[in-house]
Amino acid sequence: MTSPAIERLVGHLGKLPGLGPRSARRAALHLLERRESHLEPLLVALRTAAESVRACSVCGNLDAQDPCAICADPERDRAAICVVEQVADLWALERTLMFRGRYHVLGGLLSALDGIGPEDLAIAALVARAGAPEVSEIILATSATVDGQTTAHYVADRLAESDVAISRLAHGLPVGGELDYLDDGTLGTALKARQRLL
Amino acid sequence: MTSPAIERLVGHLGKLPGLGPRSARRAALHLLERRESHLEPLLVALRTAAESVRACSVCGNLDAQDPCAICADPERDRAAICVVEQVADLWALERTLMFRGRYHVLGGLLSALDGIGPEDLAIAALVARAGAPEVSEIILATSATVDGQTTAHYVADRLAESDVAISRLAHGLPVGGELDYLDDGTLGTALKARQRLL
Repeated sequence: MTSPAIERLVGHLGKLPGLGPRSARRAALHLLERRESHLEPLLVALRTAAESVRACSVCGNLDAQDPCAICADPERDRAAICVVEQVADLWALERTLMFRGRYHVLGGLLSALDGIGPEDLAIAALVARAGAPEVSEIILATSATVDGQTTAHYVADRLAESDVAISRLAHGLPVGGELDYLDDGTLGTALKARQRLL
Repeated sequence: MTSPAIERLVGHLGKLPGLGPRSARRAALHLLERRESHLEPLLVALRTAAESVRACSVCGNLDAQDPCAICADPERDRAAICVVEQVADLWALERTLMFRGRYHVLGGLLSALDGIGPEDLAIAALVARAGAPEVSEIILATSATVDGQTTAHYVADRLAESDVAISRLAHGLPVGGELDYLDDGTLGTALKARQRLL
């Protein structure tokens, strides 16, 4: 009984990650009931972002400038490139404030099941960047999943010719994680990679 | 380090119910990485809904037509009016396919804390509708919360002069609910309102 315009809005909101059909309905209502304060500003923000935000031609980050603010920042260390699956991972690493180098967004992971091969990812561009004289380390920061690790191995192979150090993120206990609740794989890895204190 | 255009989009998405700051960030990225397939259609759907959807002048439902499809439907029973807090509740009741009457959206609940009094809700309009000769029953379908029940009592008082039956939704076990997991209030109410089988 709801109008097609509302149903379409619910449908498109429901495609957002984190919003199921029920919360998409709630979100649509929320917007329609707060036209001035919420719907219009969201419309403007979406339009502005759609018009201004582009993928960085160097690293693949999303930004209103190209090269992106990270690639263009002269303060960032040009020796290290951190390779991530997607822009979300780049942002997550940025939030840690622990990495001052630059990034490279692969745009996905190798996956036989989904038919994603090396030519679908920004691997050739990474190999080209790794060849630059100022680059001395490539950090493979893909997820600790099967596809993530497969991709990391493949990328490491492709970089073998380059004269750069290749590293990957440490695996182990998440900070604040209770042993009791941890999966066996993580626990086993943490045990194998134990670090001597004294 | 992310551009202001992205931050603004994240901010506005984060105001949607069900999306926290983290999922708003994921949703923004999801849209920006799928401009053609997701961002543009959402933009169009939002604009269309903003332009076409209005509150029904009779019941307060949201629809592209006024009166809304429910109020305009000659098949719906004009004797019963179901009073709900908000449009989401109306839609939830519609999904049950169990009610064939019409609705009245109060637009909120009485709340001393939030400073919401009777004049902020569509109560006068309800009293007027209840006075129509074809109306014989008002069903108070507000939530089983303190504010919901206070509002129901107040509305019932205001309708006391009208020549209509006033009912409220039954309280008791949710269908599929396990006794073990039920709060004491619901369980007590269900016991008090027990129904004889034989």
